[in-house]
Amino acid sequence: MTTTENHVRNGVDTATLFATLDAVKGETGIAKFQFRATNQWLSGTHNRSTIHGFHGAMQEMTHREPFTFDADHPPVLVGKDNAPTPVEYVLHALAACLTAGIANIAAARGVHLTEVSSTVEGDIDLLGILGLSDEVRNGYQQLRVSFVLRGDDPEKLRSVVEQSRRRSAVYDVVTNGVPVSIDVDAG
Amino acid sequence: MTTTENHVRNGVDTATLFATLDAVKGETGIAKFQFRATNQWLSGTHNRSTIHGFHGAMQEMTHREPFTFDADHPPVLVGKDNAPTPVEYVLHALAACLTAGIANIAAARGVHLTEVSSTVEGDIDLLGILGLSDEVRNGYQQLRVSFVLRGDDPEKLRSVVEQSRRRSAVYDVVTNGVPVSIDVDAG
Repeated sequence: MTTTENHVRNGVDTATLFATLDAVKGETGIAKFQFRATNQWLSGTHNRSTIHGFHGAMQEMTHREPFTFDADHPPVLVGKDNAPTPVEYVLHALAACLTAGIANIAAARGVHLTEVSSTVEGDIDLLGILGLSDEVRNGYQQLRVSFVLRGDDPEKLRSVVEQSRRRSAVYDVVTNGVPVSIDVDAG
Repeated sequence: MTTTENHVRNGVDTATLFATLDAVKGETGIAKFQFRATNQWLSGTHNRSTIHGFHGAMQEMTHREPFTFDADHPPVLVGKDNAPTPVEYVLHALAACLTAGIANIAAARGVHLTEVSSTVEGDIDLLGILGLSDEVRNGYQQLRVSFVLRGDDPEKLRSVVEQSRRRSAVYDVVTNGVPVSIDVDAG
C-alpha cells in the first residue's frame, strides 16, 4: 500500500482526523464553534437562507462559498413548492450527520464501507400547527431512520452506526432539544 | 381593491389558507402527514439527500421535482467543504419555519409585511462529538434567533412572531426533541 492508501480510508483522511483530535486535546478552546445562517423572507411561505461564515478553531472562518437554500410549502399546504418544507430539512440534517459520523468512525476503526444509504421518515399531524388541537404537538411525533450499510462484517457495520448515533450532533439536538431564544427588532 | 388583492396578502393566498383550515376541521385525517428524505453517502463526510415524495391529505404526493442537498464538513473538520455541515441545516430549518409562520399568520391577521429577515446562531463545543469529554453534549448548547421585521405597527409585528413561535413545527422539534428510532440493514 502507498502512503495515501494508509491515510485515506472511505474518503476520510485519517491522518488529519487523528492530528485534529491531538490538537484539540492540547487546546480545548479549538473545539468551541459557532455556526450561523441568515434568512430572508421572499413571499408567502417562500424564504431563503444563506450559510457562509462560522467561528471555530479560535478564529472566524468561511465556507469556500456562500451556500443558499430555499424553503417553501407545497400547494397542499398553501405554498408554491419552490423548495422543500422546513421540516424536511430536519430529516436531511439528521441523515447527513449520522452518515458523516459513520464514515469517520469506520475510517478511524479501519472498517471498510462500500455503501451507506438511508431513509428518514417523520410523522406529523398538522392539527397542532393549524391551531385546531391543543393536544397535538406542532412538530414531528416520531422519526424513523433506516440504514443500509455494505462493506465489512455486518456486526462491525452495526457497531459503527451505534457509535455514530452516540456522537451525532443532530441526533442529540433532535432527540434532546436545545434552548432557543428569539429576539425581535420590529422598529 | 380587486378580488386578487383581497385574497393575497404578503404573498399568501388567504382564501386558500382559510379554505384549508375549514377542510381540515371537516376531516381531521387530512392533517396527518409523513415527510421523507433519502440519503446517499458519497465519500468521507460528503453525502447527499433527496427530498421528493410525502404523504398528506390522505394521499401520496410529490414535490414538483426531486430536491437534492449535499452536506459535508469544512477542512477544519476534516472534510472537503462541498456543502454546509448537517448542524447548519438545522439553523436553516428553524429560520425557515418561523419565517413561513410569520408570513401566514400576518396574512391571516391582515398585518402588512415589507421585510422579514433573521440570523440564527448556534453554539457547539466539539469536545462532545470528538469523544473528549463526557460532560459536553454533542449538539448545540444554545440557539439564538434574531428577527428584523418591517411593515406594520411594531406591536402587531412582535405579536405575529410570538404566535409563529407558538405554532412552529421546527421550533417544537428543536426545543422539545422527538423520539428517533434507527434500524440497520447490514446484510
